[in-house]
Amino acid sequence: MAKILSVNLGSSTLKWRLFEMPDEKQIASGLVDFFDNSKAEITVKFGDQQRNKSFDKELSLKDAIMVLMDELKRLKLVEHLHEIVGIGHRVVAGGEVYKESVVITKDVLQQIDDLGVFAPLHNHREVGGIELFRQLMPWTTLVAVFDSAFHQTMSAENYLYGIPYDYYKKYGARKYGAHGTSVRYVSKRTAKFLKRPLKDLRLIVMHLGAGSSITAVSHGKSLDTSMGFTPLDGVMMNTRSGQIDASLVLYLAQKLKLKDSDEMLNILNNKSGLLGVSGLSDDQRELKKLATTQPRAQLALDMYANRVIKFVGSYIALMNGVDALIFTGGVGENSFEMRAQIMASFSYVGATIDQAKNESGDKERDISASDARVKTMVVPTNEELMIARDVYARL
Amino acid sequence: MAKILSVNLGSSTLKWRLFEMPDEKQIASGLVDFFDNSKAEITVKFGDQQRNKSFDKELSLKDAIMVLMDELKRLKLVEHLHEIVGIGHRVVAGGEVYKESVVITKDVLQQIDDLGVFAPLHNHREVGGIELFRQLMPWTTLVAVFDSAFHQTMSAENYLYGIPYDYYKKYGARKYGAHGTSVRYVSKRTAKFLKRPLKDLRLIVMHLGAGSSITAVSHGKSLDTSMGFTPLDGVMMNTRSGQIDASLVLYLAQKLKLKDSDEMLNILNNKSGLLGVSGLSDDQRELKKLATTQPRAQLALDMYANRVIKFVGSYIALMNGVDALIFTGGVGENSFEMRAQIMASFSYVGATIDQAKNESGDKERDISASDARVKTMVVPTNEELMIARDVYARL
Repeated sequence: MAKILSVNLGSSTLKWRLFEMPDEKQIASGLVDFFDNSKAEITVKFGDQQRNKSFDKELSLKDAIMVLMDELKRLKLVEHLHEIVGIGHRVVAGGEVYKESVVITKDVLQQIDDLGVFAPLHNHREVGGIELFRQLMPWTTLVAVFDSAFHQTMSAENYLYGIPYDYYKKYGARKYGAHGTSVRYVSKRTAKFLKRPLKDLRLIVMHLGAGSSITAVSHGKSLDTSMGFTPLDGVMMNTRSGQIDASLVLYLAQKLKLKDSDEMLNILNNKSGLLGVSGLSDDQRELKKLATTQPRAQLALDMYANRVIKFVGSYIALMNGVDALIFTGGVGENSFEMRAQIMASFSYVGATIDQAKNESGDKERDISASDARVKTMVVPTNEELMIARDVYARL
Repeated sequence: MAKILSVNLGSSTLKWRLFEMPDEKQIASGLVDFFDNSKAEITVKFGDQQRNKSFDKELSLKDAIMVLMDELKRLKLVEHLHEIVGIGHRVVAGGEVYKESVVITKDVLQQIDDLGVFAPLHNHREVGGIELFRQLMPWTTLVAVFDSAFHQTMSAENYLYGIPYDYYKKYGARKYGAHGTSVRYVSKRTAKFLKRPLKDLRLIVMHLGAGSSITAVSHGKSLDTSMGFTPLDGVMMNTRSGQIDASLVLYLAQKLKLKDSDEMLNILNNKSGLLGVSGLSDDQRELKKLATTQPRAQLALDMYANRVIKFVGSYIALMNGVDALIFTGGVGENSFEMRAQIMASFSYVGATIDQAKNESGDKERDISASDARVKTMVVPTNEELMIARDVYARL
């Protein structure tokens, strides 16, 4: 038995889960929320209990990790920290270097830092986190699990853009994709649920959340995915634009008299999507409530569904058919309304859903109509477990 | 009987056709090629004959039109120029103002000039051309036929981008589309050929040429189209990138140390697409020849087919099915190889083609396999005739 920690360090949060492997039993999970640097909160969940610790001052990442270690001991979730033998770190950008998870050596750490050009907001911070865990728990095997790695099976015709080929060679200008760990997990679960080998299936995974992506998984491999060079591209999201005419971006930069490209990136990443269209909220639940009185709330939701429908349709064509459509992610798992709206467009391939099954519960399940020729599933994602599996396999 | 001239004024060419209406009989057609301003050539075709006139110096647009008028008389294509009672002008950008063709008044002309913000390379030059024709043939009814007008039936969820709504209101930031006159013509022909009312059909028109676009025509109306705010967006084209992650555009602008957005627009419009990927040619026929020895020639062609397949698939989903897929435009009408490559992905909707029918001739025809559930057609486009029809209807 081995205890393994999965770590997901975002820009203002540190999410973690502690597993016992190979049983895949979740011992505890939690969140460190650094808020706006003037306060912080550490949450630990275990069994049906929850503990919170608040800090009314800035909390360094190092201090946060130390408090967390103490809590794990104090709450008897571990007896000795040495029981934790491996730590898996989610890393956003693995570029073309990392096609699978890897044990973190000094060279690997440097490489992850260098790949920060593709995810400036993420990789550098992740490197900092990895260094702290190495320092505080030097006996652990550290493993990097890349969001982009699963998509490295894409072929050039899908990952290249229609721009001068030199830019790919010189600047790494290509599609990398994201949500790979989630899509990998969900694909395996689906195959298991359907009792069919993954290598026989053509799947489309809709990971719908604050960030959303659609991936065509053909015979167990990522064939194409909607996110691109960065997670800005693809479907419209909570605050991200998704696809947009490049000349409109350049036109708007002039009209808005923007000083530099960072201002435009800020608009497209943080002020667009559901928030930008509705002018009201980036939260689909909120927009659903407002939709009866605010036409632009409904418009934003309709646009979101519309973009998902079009990407799914494009991947059905790319695979010349599909065996199962899978919903995952916060919205994909929880919004039966959005699932119903999207699935209204796929009776032409025989993918129809059963209203009662769609609306009942939040568990992994088949929501297809009884006469559906293509299965539709809801599969809650578990990137953290996938990370723990990757660590365990490398101990 | 009325003679009507259709005029299409591009950046370095003036294409025209002369029709007798309402018989739709083409009397003559031709081209003024201004080349690089140091020479020019005027071509007139009629029956099975052709006349060329070359100029070894710069030819003004006004002089070109005057020479053309003389040629029409000299070749007895008209007895008196007064027989030409109407002239239809193709105009690229009609914005949200023009939802159909319109007789050109002084106010309309000003409006077309104002709409030049959406097509700076086109509208201003077209206004210049219209003014010259008005001056030289003041007795004619002048009609503007907009490339974007047919797409004005799109609903907001399809024409809006996922960006702040204010940008739409303030700056006209939305999808306008192009190739509308071609798509309108081809849709009508298809309905006639299939002997079914256009309003009962769900069509997807692939206008594939130097510029390529895909349009979903639902019940006679444009539902969605691949070109966007400008004709840069959508599928990859001969020298245009098509869709690309906006953050990659901004990233490349920095890496390439570009001075302004015009440099980036030049790269994306003129140095990308088939040309940029292959590094060899922007011509599909040329690339096909090179493909046996040059892998990037094949890659460019595969990417082109891939993008078309994905757009068609997305529109099949948007309409929850399709009745006919239609190829038109230079590539769509003439490249049986590209048609075959694209159609290999649509057996899942029962859209399969007959190899012999696909490879035989260049006429309007059904190329579907005998057991196909969805029709596949080749329909040569005729924007000029559509323009002449619009003029005749407004005389």
